[in-house]
Amino acid sequence: MLQVITRAQAAACVREQMKAVVPRTETVDLHRAAGRVLAEDITAMLDVPGFDRTTVDGYAVLAADTFGAGAAVPAELEIAGDVRMGEAPSFRLRSGQCARIATGGMLPAGADAAVMVEHTEEDAGVCLVFQGVAPGENITRRGDDVKVGSTKQQKGTTLGSSQIGVLAALGVRSVPVFQKPRIAVLSTGDELANGDAQPGQVQDVNSFLLSAAAEACGCTAVPLGAVPDDRAKICAALEQGLQAADMVLISGGSSAGTRDMTVDILRQYGDVLFHGVAMKPGKPTIFGMAAGKPVFGLPGHPLAAYFVFRLLVREAVGELLCLPPDRPLAVRPLAVNVPSNHGREEFLCVRTDENGCLVPLHTKSGIISVLAKADGFICIPRDTEGLQKGEETELYLL
Amino acid sequence: MLQVITRAQAAACVREQMKAVVPRTETVDLHRAAGRVLAEDITAMLDVPGFDRTTVDGYAVLAADTFGAGAAVPAELEIAGDVRMGEAPSFRLRSGQCARIATGGMLPAGADAAVMVEHTEEDAGVCLVFQGVAPGENITRRGDDVKVGSTKQQKGTTLGSSQIGVLAALGVRSVPVFQKPRIAVLSTGDELANGDAQPGQVQDVNSFLLSAAAEACGCTAVPLGAVPDDRAKICAALEQGLQAADMVLISGGSSAGTRDMTVDILRQYGDVLFHGVAMKPGKPTIFGMAAGKPVFGLPGHPLAAYFVFRLLVREAVGELLCLPPDRPLAVRPLAVNVPSNHGREEFLCVRTDENGCLVPLHTKSGIISVLAKADGFICIPRDTEGLQKGEETELYLL
Repeated sequence: MLQVITRAQAAACVREQMKAVVPRTETVDLHRAAGRVLAEDITAMLDVPGFDRTTVDGYAVLAADTFGAGAAVPAELEIAGDVRMGEAPSFRLRSGQCARIATGGMLPAGADAAVMVEHTEEDAGVCLVFQGVAPGENITRRGDDVKVGSTKQQKGTTLGSSQIGVLAALGVRSVPVFQKPRIAVLSTGDELANGDAQPGQVQDVNSFLLSAAAEACGCTAVPLGAVPDDRAKICAALEQGLQAADMVLISGGSSAGTRDMTVDILRQYGDVLFHGVAMKPGKPTIFGMAAGKPVFGLPGHPLAAYFVFRLLVREAVGELLCLPPDRPLAVRPLAVNVPSNHGREEFLCVRTDENGCLVPLHTKSGIISVLAKADGFICIPRDTEGLQKGEETELYLL
Repeated sequence: MLQVITRAQAAACVREQMKAVVPRTETVDLHRAAGRVLAEDITAMLDVPGFDRTTVDGYAVLAADTFGAGAAVPAELEIAGDVRMGEAPSFRLRSGQCARIATGGMLPAGADAAVMVEHTEEDAGVCLVFQGVAPGENITRRGDDVKVGSTKQQKGTTLGSSQIGVLAALGVRSVPVFQKPRIAVLSTGDELANGDAQPGQVQDVNSFLLSAAAEACGCTAVPLGAVPDDRAKICAALEQGLQAADMVLISGGSSAGTRDMTVDILRQYGDVLFHGVAMKPGKPTIFGMAAGKPVFGLPGHPLAAYFVFRLLVREAVGELLCLPPDRPLAVRPLAVNVPSNHGREEFLCVRTDENGCLVPLHTKSGIISVLAKADGFICIPRDTEGLQKGEETELYLL
């Protein structure tokens, strides 16, 4: 067994190994891009808006023509024409002229402001303007929103509705994204059942939980199901995973003997980088590289496996796709004292009570009770005296 | 034009109409269920755990045999056998006996506790126990986590990693879910371009933004692209949408004339339920039913269309899929005073500053600037004097 290292050291080791892995990219239609991760910076290829336009319904004018206009003394402007939506006006405004225009319409050459229709009256080809405007009033200039050449979306951005709206407004219709990393998920254990359990068996949770976690961070899960603690079967599944996926997760092997078997198998296919992380739960975590692909050995207990996924597997995905770190989303006070566990970082599922305080959930109460009630989890740092009631604590969302 | 109604009235009207729409359901493999919405309550078909089991590595015992055992006076127990993982022990413990067992192993009949291996020594078929245990110690009983027949997941639950973990642990391998509602998304406007813009044209944003918003709330978008403000073309697209989808969104028609055209077209195909909602932006919102399907007329401005999506279209989806309401996710103080807009609820995009306070973003600064910077949006209630700096304000996340 290698020496136990800290989670920070483990994360650094994972990131370091992933630097050598080259992510694949592809180009997808913007309509299919939600949830995907940009593989390149997107730079504006055009100004937005692309032309000077009005922000009101009314008349395009030369502001100077309206100076001093008021209710008693309106400015009288000849109507030179209509601006049609979506078209460049074919005419130019001269002093003394105006043009009918709707919100978003392109200003005719010569115009430098717009008058709201509410401040006008029209009569026989003449528009009376009852309120003067300053140059630039009621219009936006070309490039006011975005200047051509500015970077608008960065590599590593996960595309949500807002980001897709931004890209659409820039005229982008297809985007370079990372291919979704494929994560093979294998459960091991003589006790695992798949739906139909005999006495003494328990349901395989990890192949479902970890597959869902993989999909939640932008990957495609390749579920390999559950196999007994049998060397030949685990080897066959690992080979299948290495062929079909970019990363392999093997969970289970809770007894010391089986853990060593996973390490041993990984050594047969590649290198073991660490075995043992100073975190609770999650201590027996294994990480190595085989066939140039990362392989994780995760604990068999579903919550422990999930924590290691969020804290270490997610680091590998993040490094590959240039994602921002998976940070706690909120800071909330603790509802009770939480004792420390010297020497290992400890992770605890919590729920938020009616006062917004965090209540730790004890895993002893059962996997489902915890998973169904937890809003997230917290970290108790190593070598502390524990956390005090009321202490502001970072909450990772489940 | 129908009378302008409040947003609450509009939402109630939408929900009322949706009660008559029957959602379609399907059964999917649990591995494919992430992000889907349960169409039925899921009740536990088995106890979890399914048998009494240990929570430690060590020996299954009769607690009474260990009473009074200590470092000086160990209890001596005959080793009756080994419990194999995943199997029901074939033997029964009698008083004076114990059985080797690993964490999660099934207790043999007769046993009522487990002793940790750290508190024992083994010698020639005999186990010395140096610390007594009470009945029930270091074991969990059948059904401690979940009792058969209890409801574990409710209809309308969106399945994330935790929920999938819960279902897996219950032995569920396929789940009844709602079919994803199909939402057809049409943009209208003579000024709209699709990627390659002529002078005077602007990029179509809404078919992308609203499609992404539809996918984000568990629907499948059916993008219909952009058409000019032409009655025949809008009618053709509406017919296509009604055929291909469960709901149709028509955005655009910013001028009074086109708005009336959309209302008029909707009347031709069905009933207009409301036209005009006392919200800013979003006032010209139209809602009706055609061919038994909801049809929304949304404003052309992307942010306005997005607000109406979140506040009214999402209500229709929520009613159909039994989703919980789309609530603000946090409460944060305002960084500045925000003036009121008497008579209409007002919605404003905001970003969170470095102190966690909300800063309103002015839509005048441009669509992209707002979409790229906003973390969410807030609501200023009708008929208030505005919101004060420091006031705790609900934040809807974008």
